[in-house]
Amino acid sequence: MQRIKNRHAAGRRMPAEDAALLIKDGMNVITSGFTPSGYPKAVPLALARRVESGEKLKINLFTGASVGDELDGSLSRVGAVARRFPYQTNADMRKSIHQGKVCFSDIHLSHFPKQVESGVYGDIDIAIVEALAILEDGSIVPTTSVGISPTALQMAKQVIVEINTSQPLSLCGIHDIYLPKRPPFSGEIPIYRVSDRIGSTSMACDPNKIVAVVMTDIEDSAHKFGQTDPMSVKISEHLIRFFEEEVERGRLPDNLFPLQSGVGNVSNAVLSGLVQSGFKEMSVYSEVLQDSVFELIESGKVTYASGTALTPSKEKRKWLFEHLEELRRHCILRPMEISNHPEVIRRLGVIAMNTALEIDIYGHVNSTHLFGSRLLNGIGGSGDFARNSYISIFTTSSIALEGKVSSIVPKVSHTDHTEHDVHIVVTEQGLADLRALAPVERAEAIIENCAHPMYRSRLREYLHRAMKQPSHEPHLLEEALSWHVRYLKEGSM
Amino acid sequence: MQRIKNRHAAGRRMPAEDAALLIKDGMNVITSGFTPSGYPKAVPLALARRVESGEKLKINLFTGASVGDELDGSLSRVGAVARRFPYQTNADMRKSIHQGKVCFSDIHLSHFPKQVESGVYGDIDIAIVEALAILEDGSIVPTTSVGISPTALQMAKQVIVEINTSQPLSLCGIHDIYLPKRPPFSGEIPIYRVSDRIGSTSMACDPNKIVAVVMTDIEDSAHKFGQTDPMSVKISEHLIRFFEEEVERGRLPDNLFPLQSGVGNVSNAVLSGLVQSGFKEMSVYSEVLQDSVFELIESGKVTYASGTALTPSKEKRKWLFEHLEELRRHCILRPMEISNHPEVIRRLGVIAMNTALEIDIYGHVNSTHLFGSRLLNGIGGSGDFARNSYISIFTTSSIALEGKVSSIVPKVSHTDHTEHDVHIVVTEQGLADLRALAPVERAEAIIENCAHPMYRSRLREYLHRAMKQPSHEPHLLEEALSWHVRYLKEGSM
Repeated sequence: MQRIKNRHAAGRRMPAEDAALLIKDGMNVITSGFTPSGYPKAVPLALARRVESGEKLKINLFTGASVGDELDGSLSRVGAVARRFPYQTNADMRKSIHQGKVCFSDIHLSHFPKQVESGVYGDIDIAIVEALAILEDGSIVPTTSVGISPTALQMAKQVIVEINTSQPLSLCGIHDIYLPKRPPFSGEIPIYRVSDRIGSTSMACDPNKIVAVVMTDIEDSAHKFGQTDPMSVKISEHLIRFFEEEVERGRLPDNLFPLQSGVGNVSNAVLSGLVQSGFKEMSVYSEVLQDSVFELIESGKVTYASGTALTPSKEKRKWLFEHLEELRRHCILRPMEISNHPEVIRRLGVIAMNTALEIDIYGHVNSTHLFGSRLLNGIGGSGDFARNSYISIFTTSSIALEGKVSSIVPKVSHTDHTEHDVHIVVTEQGLADLRALAPVERAEAIIENCAHPMYRSRLREYLHRAMKQPSHEPHLLEEALSWHVRYLKEGSM
Repeated sequence: MQRIKNRHAAGRRMPAEDAALLIKDGMNVITSGFTPSGYPKAVPLALARRVESGEKLKINLFTGASVGDELDGSLSRVGAVARRFPYQTNADMRKSIHQGKVCFSDIHLSHFPKQVESGVYGDIDIAIVEALAILEDGSIVPTTSVGISPTALQMAKQVIVEINTSQPLSLCGIHDIYLPKRPPFSGEIPIYRVSDRIGSTSMACDPNKIVAVVMTDIEDSAHKFGQTDPMSVKISEHLIRFFEEEVERGRLPDNLFPLQSGVGNVSNAVLSGLVQSGFKEMSVYSEVLQDSVFELIESGKVTYASGTALTPSKEKRKWLFEHLEELRRHCILRPMEISNHPEVIRRLGVIAMNTALEIDIYGHVNSTHLFGSRLLNGIGGSGDFARNSYISIFTTSSIALEGKVSSIVPKVSHTDHTEHDVHIVVTEQGLADLRALAPVERAEAIIENCAHPMYRSRLREYLHRAMKQPSHEPHLLEEALSWHVRYLKEGSM
């Protein structure tokens, strides 16, 4: 297949260095890419080299979600990023954020595209989008993620396309591109089943906006396959038992409701556990499709999976690319506005499973800030799913740092998900079903079922002393954050 | 008009005392009523008298939202409530909650009906629903609110109807009853404009479930009309200026997007301010329609308002009831599952305006718990709107208790809405637009624009000291809640 079918675009082929020259100081740049798949690589690397060799340049960088080191890492290391939205996971970018060199804020992923359209971030000067191909009409076929690219192509004044030949053409056809109109006349999103196709397989783009086409073959960065640890296995077992009980009680159908699972090794391992379960004909309506989803499809447990990115481990990528012809019958990639849209999540009754850094006795969740101040990653799409799901589940190991930190604390040091959005808490110790419970009952369930035994008595004691003063959600404000303070001073909670 | 047209139901007429006998110890009881309109009165009062005179009885009480004293007050005073969901505002009920006698939990109102259907609260034994009339087919016409009643009639094994003759028959036709099916095949909610009618004007009910019909004429309890205070006027002025600027920048259309406004005097006064604005042909997609909405309709500023309850003040009720024929052309009452549904809120681009108890420098909002522990009211539907709205606005006065308390604090003592759900903060001091800002920038905007001058320098000082340690959202955990602790000890922050 010819990669560049549009004649105008074909005439704009140039080296990455020349394309990077189109990016000027102060520009708003929006790119493809989602946790970290399908992001542009050659042009950001060329831009970083330019800045490294002395040019003064800072851009505002908008993406779908996290991207690879070629983009976030290389640009933040040379100080070329002023503002960064809506999610990142890069160590060097994080360092720049902590040093106050980069202004970053976490934004609910489903909201971000329409916020960009609304103009609150200013005009979008340039989009850099990784692609499989440019079609006759100028429309662009994405690679391993869709993310915010359809909006990027719509909003940007100029478009740079990176054709990545390391991405297999057999991805063609897996994408389903549909964007809701702007309010107040958005219309509905006509997805009634996980597998519904509602759009096109390429992203509309005015060919006259294409100012550069760069050829590259740099592969998506990929994390190593995380060994399944005993902790995740136990969490998975607790969850499967819970699902089985819900089915027995008639609260969930035999094949459950569509599953969402957060990103990362623990989430992946927890979802993997379902391969061993008795559930059949399950479906996935999620953000990122990781190894576990491919295993569930391979084992015949999951019939269909919808997401906005394929993010295999290094080890799984080869298998994935070899099986794309078959996988395309079981997978669909949508824009992040659709994969995370409350309308669809609520309609399908999605079961949301996300990870927490720490959870307090009343069920508030911190998923972003270590000890209240230091950013780890960000909330990503967890808020889209937790708030609008049928059942919202948060998982964490009960302790961290060899027991020096309890993940169950009197009060979280930062709140990303409130008690109202947390139905089920699971640690390797057990599961607490918080639905229909009042705060003190929730605290008892979380302490007894989820906290590590070495911290239980102290949590109980905090609760009981707080309860001496009549109140709804008893706290001792002087002590509420003292566990965190103790860790910061003494190295242990 | 004959009030009871169904023959079976007509045969079940009885005094409130007899109907109350159907309610037994341990039952799950679900009632009509929403902030506090259209709730049952005679039967709960009869039940309370029975318990007062010695019978041992405790029920679990589920409603749409807050209800009047005849229900929450009378039953909690005699200790007849074991569990109470999903929202309340009654002083005696709150006392019982604080004393641990009633288990209460706040639940997002849009989620509550489907949660009841899911069975997590157990079987529903009895529904008590206030009605204008029972039609031939057994279907029931609600009064001043719809709330959770359609679900109540569907789920309850037995139904008690209170026909309230103080509620004018001219309410007939204002209701639009539609319930989404259960997931995963819920289908869409076909509301594309605020005024779209998608259902029936009465609530389906199997007439064989109607075990009692009680006649009553007790009026809805109503609060007194709150005097418009200078603080609310200033908040309103800041908001109107913001809206004008958004229109000028092309981010909002001339008639804005549909407006939601929280419940209470401040919200009402803020919305009232729009009567003086230049905006025309506005619409309201909200939960509770208060005096301000009727004024906006009367003045021709609002063409259509959708809600789940009509909650006029004592003073406005007479006017409202006299103008219902005309108002029905401009108002619609929907089930709370629809008035608060994320699908519709997101589709229409609703502008959400809710009130906060306190807001911290990074934009986290506490709207329920005084000093972290003591419940004031609850979040009600604010989470449904804040998370899914196009613009989410929170208002509060900058100080409370004559300045002894700052509503802008280093860290909120309880989090109901996270920084990610708070776009705009407004106090009488000014407005902070937090969109596209990073945490430290947000803090600066909130401190300089919204905090009271008497607290500004101390907030600045906290921020600057916290910033000495590089981090994303700088906090000093030892001091973060010290303002609250100081108030509790010394009576002033």
